[in-house]
Amino acid sequence: MSERPLVIAAPHPRTLEMIFTPDALARFRERYDILETTAGALEALPPDTLARARYLVGQPDLSDALLAAMTGLRAIVNVEGNFTDNMPYERCFERGIHVLVTSSVFAEPVAEIGLGMALSLHRQIAQADADFRRGDEVWGLDGNGSAQLLSSSRVGIVGFGDLGRCLNRLLAGFRAKVLVHDPWLPDSILADHGVEAVSLDALLSGADTVFVTASVTADNQHLFDADAFAAMKPGAAFVLLSRAGIVDFDAMREAAASGRIKVATDVFPDEPPAADDPVRSTPNMLLSAHRAGALTVAFQRMGDIVLDDLALMDRGLPPARARRAERETVRRMRSKPVSKS
Amino acid sequence: MSERPLVIAAPHPRTLEMIFTPDALARFRERYDILETTAGALEALPPDTLARARYLVGQPDLSDALLAAMTGLRAIVNVEGNFTDNMPYERCFERGIHVLVTSSVFAEPVAEIGLGMALSLHRQIAQADADFRRGDEVWGLDGNGSAQLLSSSRVGIVGFGDLGRCLNRLLAGFRAKVLVHDPWLPDSILADHGVEAVSLDALLSGADTVFVTASVTADNQHLFDADAFAAMKPGAAFVLLSRAGIVDFDAMREAAASGRIKVATDVFPDEPPAADDPVRSTPNMLLSAHRAGALTVAFQRMGDIVLDDLALMDRGLPPARARRAERETVRRMRSKPVSKS
Amino acid sequence: MSERPLVIAAPHPRTLEMIFTPDALARFRERYDILETTAGALEALPPDTLARARYLVGQPDLSDALLAAMTGLRAIVNVEGNFTDNMPYERCFERGIHVLVTSSVFAEPVAEIGLGMALSLHRQIAQADADFRRGDEVWGLDGNGSAQLLSSSRVGIVGFGDLGRCLNRLLAGFRAKVLVHDPWLPDSILADHGVEAVSLDALLSGADTVFVTASVTADNQHLFDADAFAAMKPGAAFVLLSRAGIVDFDAMREAAASGRIKVATDVFPDEPPAADDPVRSTPNMLLSAHRAGALTVAFQRMGDIVLDDLALMDRGLPPARARRAERETVRRMRSKPVSKS
Amino acid sequence: MSERPLVIAAPHPRTLEMIFTPDALARFRERYDILETTAGALEALPPDTLARARYLVGQPDLSDALLAAMTGLRAIVNVEGNFTDNMPYERCFERGIHVLVTSSVFAEPVAEIGLGMALSLHRQIAQADADFRRGDEVWGLDGNGSAQLLSSSRVGIVGFGDLGRCLNRLLAGFRAKVLVHDPWLPDSILADHGVEAVSLDALLSGADTVFVTASVTADNQHLFDADAFAAMKPGAAFVLLSRAGIVDFDAMREAAASGRIKVATDVFPDEPPAADDPVRSTPNMLLSAHRAGALTVAFQRMGDIVLDDLALMDRGLPPARARRAERETVRRMRSKPVSKS
Repeated sequence: MSERPLVIAAPHPRTLEMIFTPDALARFRERYDILETTAGALEALPPDTLARARYLVGQPDLSDALLAAMTGLRAIVNVEGNFTDNMPYERCFERGIHVLVTSSVFAEPVAEIGLGMALSLHRQIAQADADFRRGDEVWGLDGNGSAQLLSSSRVGIVGFGDLGRCLNRLLAGFRAKVLVHDPWLPDSILADHGVEAVSLDALLSGADTVFVTASVTADNQHLFDADAFAAMKPGAAFVLLSRAGIVDFDAMREAAASGRIKVATDVFPDEPPAADDPVRSTPNMLLSAHRAGALTVAFQRMGDIVLDDLALMDRGLPPARARRAERETVRRMRSKPVSKS
Repeated sequence: MSERPLVIAAPHPRTLEMIFTPDALARFRERYDILETTAGALEALPPDTLARARYLVGQPDLSDALLAAMTGLRAIVNVEGNFTDNMPYERCFERGIHVLVTSSVFAEPVAEIGLGMALSLHRQIAQADADFRRGDEVWGLDGNGSAQLLSSSRVGIVGFGDLGRCLNRLLAGFRAKVLVHDPWLPDSILADHGVEAVSLDALLSGADTVFVTASVTADNQHLFDADAFAAMKPGAAFVLLSRAGIVDFDAMREAAASGRIKVATDVFPDEPPAADDPVRSTPNMLLSAHRAGALTVAFQRMGDIVLDDLALMDRGLPPARARRAERETVRRMRSKPVSKS
Repeated sequence: MSERPLVIAAPHPRTLEMIFTPDALARFRERYDILETTAGALEALPPDTLARARYLVGQPDLSDALLAAMTGLRAIVNVEGNFTDNMPYERCFERGIHVLVTSSVFAEPVAEIGLGMALSLHRQIAQADADFRRGDEVWGLDGNGSAQLLSSSRVGIVGFGDLGRCLNRLLAGFRAKVLVHDPWLPDSILADHGVEAVSLDALLSGADTVFVTASVTADNQHLFDADAFAAMKPGAAFVLLSRAGIVDFDAMREAAASGRIKVATDVFPDEPPAADDPVRSTPNMLLSAHRAGALTVAFQRMGDIVLDDLALMDRGLPPARARRAERETVRRMRSKPVSKS
Repeated sequence: MSERPLVIAAPHPRTLEMIFTPDALARFRERYDILETTAGALEALPPDTLARARYLVGQPDLSDALLAAMTGLRAIVNVEGNFTDNMPYERCFERGIHVLVTSSVFAEPVAEIGLGMALSLHRQIAQADADFRRGDEVWGLDGNGSAQLLSSSRVGIVGFGDLGRCLNRLLAGFRAKVLVHDPWLPDSILADHGVEAVSLDALLSGADTVFVTASVTADNQHLFDADAFAAMKPGAAFVLLSRAGIVDFDAMREAAASGRIKVATDVFPDEPPAADDPVRSTPNMLLSAHRAGALTVAFQRMGDIVLDDLALMDRGLPPARARRAERETVRRMRSKPVSKS
């Protein structure tokens, strides 16, 4: 009988092959007994198997009874990216089971494309290429009427979690003034990152570029509406990187169509939008088909986090890489989980 | 009679209104007697006027005789951006006349668009927007087959003058390994900037992204030929930011067309290319109509440099902001000056 | 009857006047009902008072019964700096009571003096001043026989908590190679901070300067013994910033006395050491009377943390500034708490 | 007959063995014909030898005739560190002979000890060690009455050449507000380094720490007098790193003796001061016997600069590492050269 710790893996909609590199997966299989299963099949596992499980990798629906049966459980590691209301988190907190999520892997790819989108908007990189291919490009200074530099400009970041912090890091060389709005953090923490804490109004009216990185919560649906876009500086760029629910999408599209601001978005209320959705032909918009975070290399970093944090917990230490669910906020999230990766 | 120093201004193809903000121009006119003229009219100026000129702002053709007549001259400030073989530089050096150029103003706008182009190539930002508008966008992971992160990748910079250094600065937050090839600088200076000095071969075969920032000189025309592109890593990005003469343009276009590498270029052998030039329909290319540096805000920074350096020289101090022509290299440059801005 | 939340304050050995600036204390008193008390008097509080307490600021001995009586408690905030085995932490974790400590305030003052000590050792700043005052200073190059630069050298940091990270930040401008040993953290987290994870052996034999910032735990008492000092590079500096228990103090003193290494220490096994303790006359040592963290400004930052985190918890959000006790490690600490500040 | 270029070496008061590592010296001897000589013997060299010399490494007295005889000279490389009025610089400029100095090697060692001195003053590191050895140390908070943090404080730097810039770099991790006064540089260059250009008055009254790095010139002798010290913040630190001539030394000593400010100095009007000079017993002072720059490793970096820049000039390129003498300022310097290293 194996002496290796038991891991129950129910990673759907991910697969182990997706979240581990081949090398990392081999190490994972070497260190642990892995029982790969699905949410539906969990209930049917024998009680002693459930009792022996040290870790659950995945985010299956869990009943109170099922969690109670996993008497040796130390941690649940969500590899989808969002916490949803499908397990008894309070019981986990009481029992000292760590509830973890590996979503930090998306910060770097999303921040990079976000910065690329901002540069493309301010310098019309995509537009200029399309013009050139159609044969009506405009040369030199004449083609730069609305061009702006990011360097030494004012950049607003809404939400200062992994993604907002990564964006701030990527901006390090630009010497920009970074304004941040994050109601979940005290000003002092923002100051410690070298950014200025501001109200949402001050951010909207002050920033030449606005990056929206905040998750959708019960409190911020349609936070960015027509009034918000009207408050932005003329010619400013609005880059939506988190979820469509945080904006009034029609108002955003109209603000771009009017030419008042420039908009880039990776997310849409319905994905894909209909073939005749006006967003597909709106000028001053840069459209991306929910591709910002979905890089093979990002998913594979999830496995590294799993390996590192399980190794720490095996040694009786707390996990250090994955983000932990918080009692206070785990139920506030409103992001729809992805149905497929 | 005025006691203000005399500046002869012959800024063509720029104008004073272009290289100064209105405020800066007012200050310039307040501090100096400004005689605005053209290359052709210079010869006709009275000898005492020429003798009284302390500074020449511009890059007109200058004969030995004309320079000799400007007996009080302290500096010539080129506001076009390139030194050309149109004045007796040796005489200037002998006489201790500073020969200056304000081209550093272009570094930031060109570096920003270069970084934006690299991000666009690696994440297909422009391509994905065009696909979306045509209705055949690919969603999520499926759309990211060739996507690469700049973070923690290897970035090559060819040429480490103002532009290369600015690019390196913008990359600060990306934690990339920066490889630099610049035969005019010792390795120690590159190390001091935190980059690694490498041969051109090592740069081409090692970098995931290659930025070409080197000016064209007598020595490097067509430096990047078919062999160079073949030596690059598959899927790498090549971003041409300086002058078309440094590449074999057809070979570059073919390397992109073949899908082996991705290419972005701001410059072309003939500008504009013909309507039926194949470059206009080459895939894996990002096309920009010589727009990288030509921002109003960049030109206006020239005036700030002029004001700062003239103020220093007025006080008997050396200029500190504009770059100086070097005896050894001023005649090596082969960039065609712009005929209009 | 007050509607302000009730805070029980039992900050001994601190006082509220010590951990708050006058302004911050005024704000604290305005926002909360403050009941100042002592560990001994806690038991005597009426049950409804205990039940109404939302926060406990301080680190008094707490029995199970007392904690149970505080039914509305959201957080205990330790303002001494170390967790000791004087309260039922497990009950807190079960109930979701945050157990917090404000010790991060000491990181900056301790890191600064640590860096100052390292520079003083490598450049004999203190020694040279003493020589000068005695009239036997050695001038110029002759006085720099054992001098070393920190720039571009190899710096080892043992323990990478608040203090180790702050030291690494202060070193940013030195371009040093920073080697870190911290068995509680995966290599990936160290790499993310730009430092290299190494074994303790590799750190000792490779570093020109060793900073010890790790807390004393059950596992690391006398971690640095005669063998460890013998493994260090000749002429290297050893700077002890945490607790004396982590070193074999006699061995450390002898390593300095022998001239093989240079040593600075802020802590001693018995404080103060006896008047005739040989440490008081050991050469190649820099002695500091447990003064590294004890700055008025540091203590006062504790109050800012208290205010920020209580404000977050008042709004139903998790605390964000104070460090949390971890189930796994809270009982491993062996630091003696201070008896007075 | 050798085809290697001829270097005349007259490095007194340095020696080649002092300014080159053994490896670098071997490379130097391999690449060049080296003729080691002294100022006095130069005149006696045969005309064809003088005519063949491509480089002069050293700072010997040179007459017009001697310079004229060196018809092939490309550069004079000063390895003492200061330009003095002992050669016809104007002739060099006319002929396009580079006049170079390798003094940048001192920036790092001087900046490091300067930072160490500032930390020692603000935290009484040297004083506390002396107290401890005498048995009257003061423990903990009681011993920190006048302690100040450098982090987030205001730091003033007077003079922003190699040394001032290096200090600013070392301060990068401290998040200090850096105020700079340098009348030879426009504000824009200081802003580009992330520091704030201020008047000397604003610097003195605003800074918690003042570093003096400016060379002595005709204009700034005794720039820091009793009024200047009176204008400083009480408890501020004054760190003198350049030359004693820039301060009224008695006034500085008295300002320290009064306890109003803290002072560190590496330089003295007469070196060494007399045995009974009151400076030797002044409290609140940190004394260093002109040891700040005189590190073996610093001198040896001179040789690396020589090798790099000669290699560039051999290839017809301008030197890039050594600082160049400027026509406008070379004669303004008033530093006494060192008589011995």
